[in-house]
Amino acid sequence: MADEVILLDFWASPFGMRVRITLEEKGVKFEYREQDLMNKSPLLLQMNPVHKKIPVLVHNGKPVCESLIAVQYVDETWKDKAPLLPSDPYQRAQARFWADFVDKKIYDLGRKTWQTKGEEQEGAKKELIECFKLLEKELGDKPYFGGETFGYVDVTLVPFYSWFDVYERSGNFSVEAECPKLMEWANRCLQKESVSKSLVDREKVYGFVLELKKKFGIE
Amino acid sequence: MADEVILLDFWASPFGMRVRITLEEKGVKFEYREQDLMNKSPLLLQMNPVHKKIPVLVHNGKPVCESLIAVQYVDETWKDKAPLLPSDPYQRAQARFWADFVDKKIYDLGRKTWQTKGEEQEGAKKELIECFKLLEKELGDKPYFGGETFGYVDVTLVPFYSWFDVYERSGNFSVEAECPKLMEWANRCLQKESVSKSLVDREKVYGFVLELKKKFGIE
Repeated sequence: MADEVILLDFWASPFGMRVRITLEEKGVKFEYREQDLMNKSPLLLQMNPVHKKIPVLVHNGKPVCESLIAVQYVDETWKDKAPLLPSDPYQRAQARFWADFVDKKIYDLGRKTWQTKGEEQEGAKKELIECFKLLEKELGDKPYFGGETFGYVDVTLVPFYSWFDVYERSGNFSVEAECPKLMEWANRCLQKESVSKSLVDREKVYGFVLELKKKFGIE
Repeated sequence: MADEVILLDFWASPFGMRVRITLEEKGVKFEYREQDLMNKSPLLLQMNPVHKKIPVLVHNGKPVCESLIAVQYVDETWKDKAPLLPSDPYQRAQARFWADFVDKKIYDLGRKTWQTKGEEQEGAKKELIECFKLLEKELGDKPYFGGETFGYVDVTLVPFYSWFDVYERSGNFSVEAECPKLMEWANRCLQKESVSKSLVDREKVYGFVLELKKKFGIE
């Protein structure tokens, strides 16, 4: 029986992009089902009753929720091609540490650059730049976070590239000026078809955020 | 060369207890080093420069930070005894999902039962009970979350048992009355030496919290 793989997702979600990239890396065919987050489908509520969030990977009818858990699931299920986690336990722990760091910091800080004002916005922007600098330091001179090949931390972080315009224009800074090597890394990742196919246009995300701000009355 | 395993920890930390239980389950000898969190040691700052938090597992001089990452690391490194994660990828994803749920909810909600007042406290208590009920439902009639044997979700959740007195007395409710099966599960876990050795007395934790409240002027 062929695998049936369905992804419940929303186009601008950096979390969804992680799963898209991973499925592309593994060469897994999947059906993409765009979700209306303002009016959640019975399928989404049934597949993720706890968090009611996208992305949900549905493999042969069974749901896997939370993006990093889905990425690990795909990595472990289709393990013969393009392994994302290293095989050495210590290196795996390090990869998980930095993926967890990205998960705990980037989205929330990024969100604050456009949803808040004044001191809160300034503080978030400053901390976001510090996080990018820490990540750049961790990358060092390696082509990818895990070394020579594209891996787990890369998958976790690179989707935020689609949101860079939002962060930069809202916070009035330049990721490239602050972290040139991190920007080189992002461009390196984008040369991979799995990434370029899965990320969305930065300008389009910026336009989406402008509409959201109008809708929710954020100046 | 024999393994050198050091745990930088703080006695009342439910996160630290996870790593202690895991090491005990695996029969790994380790040196426990209590940390003063008000005056962090150079070793702690050196081993966890990013988050500056306990627990840190130091294995042959190399640090592993963040409790669930350390638990997975120990499980993967000493893999021949007492496996915590299931071997099936889907079951692993489910275990990771519920461990992540515990991580995202219980500590913060529990903290609010004693650090906040009024509506915020009431809301946190209500949500905490809902989370316990969800976990109880997920447990169902199984002896442990993963089925017949003690595993990853059990390790993640059971340390909060040491904090039950704090939550119950601050929030004026009873976990046993709300979730009798979850309490049976906790008592089942406590019959394991790895757990009973690693958890701390509920009364002692409650006394510690009373002192903290006095120190920080929380009524």
